[in-house]
Amino acid sequence: MNGNTFSLDRSSASASASGRPQSAYAVDRALVALIQRSLGAEPVRVQLWDGSTTYDLRYEPAAIVTIGDRSTLLKVAWNPEYWFAEGVTQGSIVITGDLLVVLSAAYRNRSRVTLLHDCVDRLRALTESHSLSGSRVNIHRHYDIGNDFYQLWLDRDLVYTCAYFADADMTLEEAQRQKMDHVCRKLRLQPGERVIEAGCGWGAMANYMAAHYGVSVRAFNISHEQVALARERAAELGLSAQVEFVEDDYRNITGSCDAFVSIGMLEHVGREHFQDLGAVIQRTLNPVSGRGLLHFIGRTYPRPLTPWIRKRIFPGAYAPTLAEVATGVLEPWDLAIIDVENLRLHYAETLAHWLRRFETAGDHVRAMFDDEFVRAWRLYLAGSETAFLTGSLHLFQVTFAAAQNDQVPWTRAHLYQ
Amino acid sequence: MNGNTFSLDRSSASASASGRPQSAYAVDRALVALIQRSLGAEPVRVQLWDGSTTYDLRYEPAAIVTIGDRSTLLKVAWNPEYWFAEGVTQGSIVITGDLLVVLSAAYRNRSRVTLLHDCVDRLRALTESHSLSGSRVNIHRHYDIGNDFYQLWLDRDLVYTCAYFADADMTLEEAQRQKMDHVCRKLRLQPGERVIEAGCGWGAMANYMAAHYGVSVRAFNISHEQVALARERAAELGLSAQVEFVEDDYRNITGSCDAFVSIGMLEHVGREHFQDLGAVIQRTLNPVSGRGLLHFIGRTYPRPLTPWIRKRIFPGAYAPTLAEVATGVLEPWDLAIIDVENLRLHYAETLAHWLRRFETAGDHVRAMFDDEFVRAWRLYLAGSETAFLTGSLHLFQVTFAAAQNDQVPWTRAHLYQ
Repeated sequence: MNGNTFSLDRSSASASASGRPQSAYAVDRALVALIQRSLGAEPVRVQLWDGSTTYDLRYEPAAIVTIGDRSTLLKVAWNPEYWFAEGVTQGSIVITGDLLVVLSAAYRNRSRVTLLHDCVDRLRALTESHSLSGSRVNIHRHYDIGNDFYQLWLDRDLVYTCAYFADADMTLEEAQRQKMDHVCRKLRLQPGERVIEAGCGWGAMANYMAAHYGVSVRAFNISHEQVALARERAAELGLSAQVEFVEDDYRNITGSCDAFVSIGMLEHVGREHFQDLGAVIQRTLNPVSGRGLLHFIGRTYPRPLTPWIRKRIFPGAYAPTLAEVATGVLEPWDLAIIDVENLRLHYAETLAHWLRRFETAGDHVRAMFDDEFVRAWRLYLAGSETAFLTGSLHLFQVTFAAAQNDQVPWTRAHLYQ
Repeated sequence: MNGNTFSLDRSSASASASGRPQSAYAVDRALVALIQRSLGAEPVRVQLWDGSTTYDLRYEPAAIVTIGDRSTLLKVAWNPEYWFAEGVTQGSIVITGDLLVVLSAAYRNRSRVTLLHDCVDRLRALTESHSLSGSRVNIHRHYDIGNDFYQLWLDRDLVYTCAYFADADMTLEEAQRQKMDHVCRKLRLQPGERVIEAGCGWGAMANYMAAHYGVSVRAFNISHEQVALARERAAELGLSAQVEFVEDDYRNITGSCDAFVSIGMLEHVGREHFQDLGAVIQRTLNPVSGRGLLHFIGRTYPRPLTPWIRKRIFPGAYAPTLAEVATGVLEPWDLAIIDVENLRLHYAETLAHWLRRFETAGDHVRAMFDDEFVRAWRLYLAGSETAFLTGSLHLFQVTFAAAQNDQVPWTRAHLYQ
């Protein structure tokens, strides 16, 4: 997605906030100089509503960030991470040129500016609720905004998690199917086995496992819209007898299984409930031959997602470290990690595909929602791509089994045959 | 190693402790009944010096454990895990039949008997020293007992860590070379690159990397005997210009490298020094393209190695969890885990090979040391094999790189081509 450009009319930024042009004073120019300096030596020109900038004009910028009014300028100076994103969303900050260059500059220079707000935000993140009702509200706000919307820019199977580009030139549809197959191989699914899936999205994985590996699946999800479509798709595929979609919370999972899989749900569980998820695995998974896989967005050290993402996009979400998952979910039940794969670059590529499709569908999205929604989701998708590219976010696939399970594979060669 | 038998004369057990036969009283028989029951329904007959037993004689036992005197009986009843091993070592407990069946029974039923001693031992383990001098003493006691001894039962390259049996019927020599190659592939070593190895044993890995991947290696070790032989071997292979063996502690590692590797050393570092190891990696590893690999015996949840192993075999050793390594070594420096492989079953197989060779060399070992040494090392090798087979111990290979390193491989298919 380098070379991705957004050619909004620059004059709209200065008009958007107050309706009349403001003069830039010395204090305004001092603040914009501070913001420019906080980005380091990146080809990003930061300017005020009247064009004032301290960017070195000998170098052509790859992008121009125009701060549209004094109120926005003050907010960005105070809390750059949050108010930059919010300003772009609200339209009081306008970016022309390559959005990803701006976001990369922000990610790479993040530590210079956000220490105070990080501390405050870590405390705030602790108060977020992942109770049964809290989780339902969180999930509803993201996943129930309309299946039509997601169909505009996801692959045709509606897989809303990291794809697996076994070859670099795969299409998104191929890479999502490769991901599902990669997970099935890691789990070594056998015909007739029973699988429980916690957090099943629109059912693509459940239906894939049933269709291609002959297993029966009970798949759980608290998004009403997703479950409805998942059932439709299973029926279309003639899989309704093999796949049961249950509209319920992972904490209410019952039954037993040979394999337990959860793709892209752990980010919504909340650290304080990792032991609950572990307990569900423990009580449902075959203790002798059972195995499981957790696929989640993770970190290299513990910290919350950005406040803007948690406000605008994913309320209550948290990307854990591998150690947090190991100690919270697996250790209490003597479950052994048998394989971990980090697919960070695959998620950056997946997001690049989504962003291109999202831009192509821009007019449709605008008609469904509004300009602010388009700006917010563009920023979310581009920002996530940048976060994976710069190593701020990672994608872990963790395969596990009971510590004494001797049916674990001898090597991983079977994944690549 | 099932079917591994030890046919010591049973009568020697009753004679060994006191020189005169003791009568078994009711209290003795009550204690042996307790011990028998603590093993669950396993085919192991526990008997006293006079043959008293509560084992169900309708079933042929796979092994007979004879407790030779009352003093040993009381000690085993008080602290089974420690005094069983110590009794076998000292000869006051004699096992006939399949040693691994006895050890498996003990491992599988461990939680029934060791709670109190576990608590005491966890406190004791905290006091063990891993200072520069403490580590030198610990390492000297295990690795400096004679290169001749290790040459009796290791492979010809003297690789004293888990092998990699890419095919189940490989010889030990082949499997050790496969392991070294597997690690080189995970590190994607290129000719001319610089590698630092922390804890290099007898130099097999350092010499392999230099000979087969054209890299230059600085390898560190505080075992004097090992370093001396490693240098000899490098000279024989014409690699002295490419491989430098430094007799020094990992904390004193200097220089810079493209790849950092440590195989079987982390178990000797001690949790309180994990950050020191991380700091060494941080200051030596190329921050843009560098990558590293840690290969270590690990656990699924935190607990010390058995007191007997720490007293007799590996003073100061600790097998960490994956989470302890992640939080202690990697997280403080924003190093990302890119791959984890659990080779538990490979270590059980490696130990089975070692134990067979050790038994074959029994007379040589006895001549070098004494009977007690032979019994202790047999118990250590068989006990370790059992620990890996029963999932009490695991073997983790962790590949890592700087969080933003974009030169990490796209998939792991290159490991299996």
